[in-house]
Amino acid sequence: MTVSAEQIKKLRELTGAGILDAKRTLEQYDGDFDKALAVLKEKGLKAAEKKAERVAKQGLIETYVHGGGRIGVMVEVNCETDFVAATNEFRQLAHDVALQIAATKPLYVSMDDVPADIVAAQKKIFADAALAEGKPANIVERIVQGKTDAFFKESVLLRQTFIRDDALTIQDLVQSVIAKLGENIVVKRFVRFELGE
Amino acid sequence: MTVSAEQIKKLRELTGAGILDAKRTLEQYDGDFDKALAVLKEKGLKAAEKKAERVAKQGLIETYVHGGGRIGVMVEVNCETDFVAATNEFRQLAHDVALQIAATKPLYVSMDDVPADIVAAQKKIFADAALAEGKPANIVERIVQGKTDAFFKESVLLRQTFIRDDALTIQDLVQSVIAKLGENIVVKRFVRFELGE
Repeated sequence: MTVSAEQIKKLRELTGAGILDAKRTLEQYDGDFDKALAVLKEKGLKAAEKKAERVAKQGLIETYVHGGGRIGVMVEVNCETDFVAATNEFRQLAHDVALQIAATKPLYVSMDDVPADIVAAQKKIFADAALAEGKPANIVERIVQGKTDAFFKESVLLRQTFIRDDALTIQDLVQSVIAKLGENIVVKRFVRFELGE
Repeated sequence: MTVSAEQIKKLRELTGAGILDAKRTLEQYDGDFDKALAVLKEKGLKAAEKKAERVAKQGLIETYVHGGGRIGVMVEVNCETDFVAATNEFRQLAHDVALQIAATKPLYVSMDDVPADIVAAQKKIFADAALAEGKPANIVERIVQGKTDAFFKESVLLRQTFIRDDALTIQDLVQSVIAKLGENIVVKRFVRFELGE
C-alpha cells in the first residue's frame, strides 16, 4: 500500500521520527495513522528515557510577556550542549513552552513536583463532593480518580495538551524535540506573574 | 548667587524634583549640591511615604534576558493607573530594575522580605568570626553591625546602589520616579534564573 506524504509529514511533526521510520511504521500498520503514531510515540519515549540520565545543564532561559506587560512567563529549558541550545528547534521549543505557560497557568512542571499533601487534599475534596451527592462508594473511587487525573492534566505542564496542537501533550512535544536533536531535554522550572495578583 | 543649569539638571535626575524646586533649594544652600540633594531626597521620601498607602495594582511585568539566554530576570513593578504604567518614565524604571537584578543578584526586594532567622544566622556568623579573631566584645558589636549593613546593601534590592548611577540607591531611583509621576510605585516581586544553577 502507499502512504501519503502528508501522513508522513504529520507523523514526523508529532514524534520527531525520521522520514524512513515514519514511512515504514505507517506501511507496517497498513496506513493506520493512529496506530503508527502510538508506536512511534512509545519508541520516542523509550529513546528519551535512555537519554534522561544524561546531564542537561546547558539550554536557554526564555521569557514571554503578554498583554503589554500584564502577564509574564520565564522558563528554563535545559539540554546537554550549547550547540543544541542554539538550534532553531530548541529555541522554538523554549518559546512554545513559555507561550503554553502564559496561556494555561500550570502550577507544576512534572508529576514529581506535585506535593503529596496537595494530591491528598484534592482527592478528599473530590471524594467529599461525590459522597455528599449520595454516590455509592465503588463509584466514588472512580469519580475521584477521574477528577484527580483531570486536575493533573490541568495543573502539570508536561501533562497538558499543547495549545498549538491538541494531538500532543507538552511531554510529547519535548520528546519529539529530543528525538530530532538527540539530546536529553528537560523543562527545569518556570514562573508566571500576573499583574496585581 | 547663580546656580548652574548643569547642577539643576543633575538634581532633578537624582530626585525627580521640579526645575523651580531644584533651583530654589540650590540657591537656599548657596549652591551646595550635596546639601540640596539631601534636602530634596528627604522631601521626596516624605512625599513617597504619603503615597505609600495608596493601592498600586497596575503596572508592568518586565523581563530581561542576558547572555543569549544564560541569565533571565522577571520583575513586577506596580503603580496606581494604567496611564502611568504606559509612560516612558515608568517603563524605563521597570527596565532599569530588571537590569539591576540581572547584574547584582539581590535576594530580597525590601528589608521587610528578609526573614528574621536569616538575619540572626548572618549576625552569628559575623560575631563568631570576629570573636575567633580575638576582637574585644565592644568592637565585635560594631563589626557585626557593619557587616550586617553590608549584607543588606548587597542582598536587598532597594538598598543596593543603582548600577547606572552610584549617587542613587534603587530606593532613591523609585522615589525619583514617584516624584515625577505622582503615583505610588512599588517593586512587588522578582525572580532571577541562571542557566544550570
